Amino acid sequence: MRAAGIILAVATLALAIPLHAAGVVDNVNGIALDRDGKLIHFDALIIDDQGKITKLVQGKVEEPRSREKKRRKKGDDTPPAPSYSFRLDGQGRTLIPGMIDAHGHVMGLGLSLLTLDLTDTKSLAEAQAKIAAYVKDNPGRKWILGGGWNQESWGLGRFPTAAELDAVTGDVPTWLERVDGHAGWANSAAMRAAGITPATKAPAGGRIETAAGKPAGVFVDAARGLIDRVVPPPAPKDRDLAFAKAQYLLLSQGITGIADMGADLNDWQTYRRAGDRDRLRVRIMVYAKGIENMVAIAGAEPTPWLYGDRLRMGGVKLLMDGALGSRGAWLKADYSDAPGQRGLPLMTGAQLRNNMSRAAMDGFQVAVHAIGDQANAEVVDAIAELSETYKGDRRWRVEHAQIIDPTDLPRFAQNGTIASMQPVHEASDWRMAMARMGEARLKGAYAWRTMLNAHVPLAFGSDVPVESSNPFPGISVAMTREDAKGEPAGGWMPEQRLTLEEAMAAFTRGGAYAGFAEDRFGTLAPGEQADFLIIDRDISTTRPAEIRNIQVIETWIGGKRVYVKGETAPVETQPNEITGISSP
Amino acid sequence: MRAAGIILAVATLALAIPLHAAGVVDNVNGIALDRDGKLIHFDALIIDDQGKITKLVQGKVEEPRSREKKRRKKGDDTPPAPSYSFRLDGQGRTLIPGMIDAHGHVMGLGLSLLTLDLTDTKSLAEAQAKIAAYVKDNPGRKWILGGGWNQESWGLGRFPTAAELDAVTGDVPTWLERVDGHAGWANSAAMRAAGITPATKAPAGGRIETAAGKPAGVFVDAARGLIDRVVPPPAPKDRDLAFAKAQYLLLSQGITGIADMGADLNDWQTYRRAGDRDRLRVRIMVYAKGIENMVAIAGAEPTPWLYGDRLRMGGVKLLMDGALGSRGAWLKADYSDAPGQRGLPLMTGAQLRNNMSRAAMDGFQVAVHAIGDQANAEVVDAIAELSETYKGDRRWRVEHAQIIDPTDLPRFAQNGTIASMQPVHEASDWRMAMARMGEARLKGAYAWRTMLNAHVPLAFGSDVPVESSNPFPGISVAMTREDAKGEPAGGWMPEQRLTLEEAMAAFTRGGAYAGFAEDRFGTLAPGEQADFLIIDRDISTTRPAEIRNIQVIETWIGGKRVYVKGETAPVETQPNEITGISSP
Repeated sequence: MRAAGIILAVATLALAIPLHAAGVVDNVNGIALDRDGKLIHFDALIIDDQGKITKLVQGKVEEPRSREKKRRKKGDDTPPAPSYSFRLDGQGRTLIPGMIDAHGHVMGLGLSLLTLDLTDTKSLAEAQAKIAAYVKDNPGRKWILGGGWNQESWGLGRFPTAAELDAVTGDVPTWLERVDGHAGWANSAAMRAAGITPATKAPAGGRIETAAGKPAGVFVDAARGLIDRVVPPPAPKDRDLAFAKAQYLLLSQGITGIADMGADLNDWQTYRRAGDRDRLRVRIMVYAKGIENMVAIAGAEPTPWLYGDRLRMGGVKLLMDGALGSRGAWLKADYSDAPGQRGLPLMTGAQLRNNMSRAAMDGFQVAVHAIGDQANAEVVDAIAELSETYKGDRRWRVEHAQIIDPTDLPRFAQNGTIASMQPVHEASDWRMAMARMGEARLKGAYAWRTMLNAHVPLAFGSDVPVESSNPFPGISVAMTREDAKGEPAGGWMPEQRLTLEEAMAAFTRGGAYAGFAEDRFGTLAPGEQADFLIIDRDISTTRPAEIRNIQVIETWIGGKRVYVKGETAPVETQPNEITGISSP
Repeated sequence: MRAAGIILAVATLALAIPLHAAGVVDNVNGIALDRDGKLIHFDALIIDDQGKITKLVQGKVEEPRSREKKRRKKGDDTPPAPSYSFRLDGQGRTLIPGMIDAHGHVMGLGLSLLTLDLTDTKSLAEAQAKIAAYVKDNPGRKWILGGGWNQESWGLGRFPTAAELDAVTGDVPTWLERVDGHAGWANSAAMRAAGITPATKAPAGGRIETAAGKPAGVFVDAARGLIDRVVPPPAPKDRDLAFAKAQYLLLSQGITGIADMGADLNDWQTYRRAGDRDRLRVRIMVYAKGIENMVAIAGAEPTPWLYGDRLRMGGVKLLMDGALGSRGAWLKADYSDAPGQRGLPLMTGAQLRNNMSRAAMDGFQVAVHAIGDQANAEVVDAIAELSETYKGDRRWRVEHAQIIDPTDLPRFAQNGTIASMQPVHEASDWRMAMARMGEARLKGAYAWRTMLNAHVPLAFGSDVPVESSNPFPGISVAMTREDAKGEPAGGWMPEQRLTLEEAMAAFTRGGAYAGFAEDRFGTLAPGEQADFLIIDRDISTTRPAEIRNIQVIETWIGGKRVYVKGETAPVETQPNEITGISSP
């Protein structure tokens, strides 16, 4: 019904193009969702001088010149309509709404992009070559940081040594994390900077690898702290660079908005510096890392929308439990593969409620990380209790909402609670989840269809940099429950699969709604920000498993082109003088 | 010569009023300084739609209607000029440029305005009545804070007691500083909150007054810390209120711009909250309190001008020494009234240079507090050395520049160093300065005329809240070297007196120049922000000693009226729910 209304509006448009139209994008295969979540098709977009959508148009938008001729012919002597300040010919390509990542870590992504990644190296020699190239490409760095190495996959049969690192890094202090995060590899300059000598003792829970009685370069577990403490924190200019790189990557993947889940004051200051210098493109819905950062960033109430709907600090992120992989998720019964263990809550029930209250009383939104079924039950209980005091449109968010006991689901669906979920986690984790909990307890795991059926608003994201921020694999997984290799064939718990409309909605309007932004962006409809993508194929006719391969050709935010595939990245993504980058 | 040029421009104006004119302020006795510092007179101001000055006009500005008639008569068929969106009839009143305070503490002022002031009480009973009224007027406060009491001027012959405070405060914790800052008066609730019992011992350097073996309510010197540590720091909403009150006071005194000397991140966040909500009116040139705040606030370089030239963090404030009154100023020879004492530097020469370097290398401006002649010599030395590395337009600032050894003055005049001075300090301090140093060593004290003769740029301010921020007493003092009582008659070191033009320049363009803002505001000239005052008398014909009594009728910033005498203060200056206010 809604789609028909839009077509009708379109029919009259060619005769009455609005006065404030600033631009037209036409000759496109336009695909969007209307406000009821139905797919609609259109051929052109008209954008006003504020960067907002005026109309979706079916058919050809008439040229101002031809309109003018017609107008004169009809004896119309009102002032002529202005011509557009820009007109983009889409050459028949597909245009879709910009994607919104409802749960990511923008600065975590950015800082990871500034460090060296050795995960794909197959030998020590290959790693050394990659490190040498990185040192050469980053001449100003005071520290070389990175990670991903694995002496097992190198077939080395031993840990690498400081000397092997010195050979390619020279005197630049270097500190590289093992792939599992449980060991670090330092060169001699890093050990000197940390004051490591043969007399240095490893702290409890740690081990210093030695050779001929001297520290050999690798520091295990708690001994890593001996080096960590001298690694300089990122300087503001490093953070600015990290942000620029993260933003560019997000735009290149079609992310036009993102909820930043757990920002500290340094992160916020970085976003403001970008905004103040007109370098903020992507829309960031900031959730502060805990109450202290919430107050430091925003003060006594959420910030207004800043920089033309590009930045707002509206809520707080709290953590109820850990993750399933490390058995930190808080479960109702023992881990199947670790009898006696149920994970641990990171807050007591009282702490959770106090923190939620503290945020809600000043009008901040609350987003709580909950993975295990017991953690989710606890958060649902707390939301029910707080909803008695904090009424109105609160939009309590549960981040991940990964394993829900089906008996808790009816309560989850109350009080307008939003499930902020990451489809790609399902594809990455289903085997591990089966090992941790067994099939019987996973009926409510990654249960997107069950959530939708229960009218729980869904907001999809990536948890970047834990997973790639690319939303198209997310849509594929949401539609197939298969991973990139097509496993398991037919999907894991395929009854939870979503349609294209449902997956796109959760990656667009759902993310906007979860950030109180649905009146500003997230839907291609009149009055909304003109945030859209030109992509390389028709998403509505692409096989679900192939959607993951969609490439973004152009990204537009607020009616302005902010990314073009193949064009050089903006200058602010290039380092000039790096002072030192710590791990994210 | 410049004045004549402006008159000429004016003569053609009535025939060619610019298209973007948004407003006219006419029928005024306009008095301003041209860019050469000469007084000019005009009758009207034309302001563009960006709030900037288009023209100063001599004579009558023609009404759009009469212009239109003339235009038609002449057969002119170009589009008609738009009429103004506002027109203010000045009714012949005097219009002058907005004043700039080159050295103040905005949040210090604001927080002082939120606390209780007992300085004018003449008896304990009067103080109790004032406290009771304050408690009644501030019902939401978790703590009552303030100061200014003096049991000597009350004729009490003893300290007041907690019980005498309890009688008027009830259970609201109350903590009031003695006028000299060396003692505090707590009520029972405050002592309970601090865990004070009869067993509590005073720390070294402190004393707890007792009665019948129990703490009686007054805590002397270091014992004050026992209560101070439980006083809550200001919450963001308290800071917002403090800022609103400070801003309103500044606008009411005709201050349209101020250099905030020593802001921390909390201060900065408060200004941003005001800017983000369109409540920032006064222009604030922020100097961070030390390097750490500089980096936390601005990152790797000064911020851009924000909120339409209303906020910028451009530099750092450093402290070389203390003050003359407390003998903290660092002198070349002993204090005359304290043989063996020369004050103390607050940094070594190396620390000073390192901090200055750290700021200058990232393009931050450096402002160093220096009061004593040795402190000023040290800073002048450091500036000379740093100028060899950090070239270009650095505008090194010396804050206070109070006592300069005349032999150092030629060096002071090098490297473009700015003297940021506070005329009212001279009137308040000259007797004390004579006692501390004797006349012979004060040849270069508060030496405004000597500075100007040596071509040292002058920027005048108030050091608010140490002195009142009202700039008109400052102009009087600068012109008379007499205090409010006219003492000493004829002025102290009257050869240092300035003319009206010179004093006004230091309180307007001088302050803008010292903040790298002279192209934006500080002068009533085309292209500059329309920041001006309507005042109650003609400053150019008022006796210098009477200028201190000038009242501001209206204050305009960026072409908008932001203060009208007699109108109700804006709602944000009124408290709604106060959580707790600590001393500034």
